Amino acid sequence: MVEDPGELADIGGKLRLFADAPLHTGARIVPAAGQIHYLMHVMRARAGDRVLLFNGRDGEWRARVADVSRRECALVCEIETRAQETGPDLWLAFAPVKKTPGEYLTQKATELGVAAMIPVVTERTVARRINTERLRANAIEAAEQSERLTVPEIRGVQSLPELLAGWPAGRGLIFCDEAGDALPIGEALAASGPRDGWGILTGPEGGFAPAERDRIRTHACVLPVTLGPRIMRADTAALAALAVWQAVLGDWH
Amino acid sequence: MVEDPGELADIGGKLRLFADAPLHTGARIVPAAGQIHYLMHVMRARAGDRVLLFNGRDGEWRARVADVSRRECALVCEIETRAQETGPDLWLAFAPVKKTPGEYLTQKATELGVAAMIPVVTERTVARRINTERLRANAIEAAEQSERLTVPEIRGVQSLPELLAGWPAGRGLIFCDEAGDALPIGEALAASGPRDGWGILTGPEGGFAPAERDRIRTHACVLPVTLGPRIMRADTAALAALAVWQAVLGDWH
Repeated sequence: MVEDPGELADIGGKLRLFADAPLHTGARIVPAAGQIHYLMHVMRARAGDRVLLFNGRDGEWRARVADVSRRECALVCEIETRAQETGPDLWLAFAPVKKTPGEYLTQKATELGVAAMIPVVTERTVARRINTERLRANAIEAAEQSERLTVPEIRGVQSLPELLAGWPAGRGLIFCDEAGDALPIGEALAASGPRDGWGILTGPEGGFAPAERDRIRTHACVLPVTLGPRIMRADTAALAALAVWQAVLGDWH
Repeated sequence: MVEDPGELADIGGKLRLFADAPLHTGARIVPAAGQIHYLMHVMRARAGDRVLLFNGRDGEWRARVADVSRRECALVCEIETRAQETGPDLWLAFAPVKKTPGEYLTQKATELGVAAMIPVVTERTVARRINTERLRANAIEAAEQSERLTVPEIRGVQSLPELLAGWPAGRGLIFCDEAGDALPIGEALAASGPRDGWGILTGPEGGFAPAERDRIRTHACVLPVTLGPRIMRADTAALAALAVWQAVLGDWH
């Protein structure tokens, strides 16, 4: 085996894996089954090859592949390559939409830097069966590929009244209101005072029911905004709001 | 048949169809085959039912279903419901990406108000077979549903040198540059002077080659921007840039 770490191969350019275990010098990580398959059979990793690891708490670490047998391998942390960072405090509360795969929204929202995703069931929500475990797997995969040091938290499903009742005081809630009479999102965010974090709320296919909309608009945390003159699908609206938030108040600034 | 137009049924709430024929009072439109199928067999339209029509030039018209036989029907324009509008002058030049269906990008970009889409083949472009006819059909469907009065133009495939050589002088070209050393997109757009329209350029899976990047960055029309610290897929970057452009310079303002 080559001794100088500089001569070892980086697997697949710069393969990043999420590991839900403490990372520190010498830490020995047993990858998850899917990761072992990917490392050994897709990437054909050999002892001494290198990957990057993160767990959402301990920064990013360079690790070397070790203890390779036919069916297993381990990853041993060598040095920290990036210090832990938290990322923007932006949640996405979304009514799942039937025709758009939840995976897609999770992937895009992860790349756009969302901190937490909360599936919300509303009166007109059609897609009521939410596989949160699957969304978690999508979020991990997207975090691995997007150079994030955190994985968005995928919360359990809530009803709209539960979401509103439990919304933290001081945290802004951006409401993408199709019915109008609100400021455009860019102006609304630029003019908003400081908050203890933010969230975005988007509705289902048929929008919110009138009573739901009234309840949302009278909530103390809510900042209603408009997203222009065109009708958007719920997932388009969610991604657009995330992007504009990042540009105005987030870490694209 | 009911005489008072107010008592006639709107099909499917507010069904909007694109028709590539002149629209004026009394104009008789023969829907495309797919539209006839949708009208007659999915929506079960009857004579006297109403739909909305647009063609990208003559505004939006209320039309009534007429001349219904077993396999055909016509649509007769009654009154103009919205005057024609042009929408923001924003193009999207994108290197097609293999794993993301082009349909998805077309649908989202249409909802986000793009005026034209140009598939661009770059050095590292993997997905070289582009079905522009299919993208056109996706753009029409998304325009019908998003209340647009225009359909984004889907241009033929160009190489990157062709795109840059033919780029109109005076039209800004927003370059989402992964390699950094550019202003964040929000600041860059807010500080940019007036242009004769805009375009956004996004790359393929592996990004642009170094020589391509140099050529882009030295083009007189190019405004390089960054989209934050996370790595995004090309389609995420395109949608994010479209949303921020709309919020800062477009019609969300």
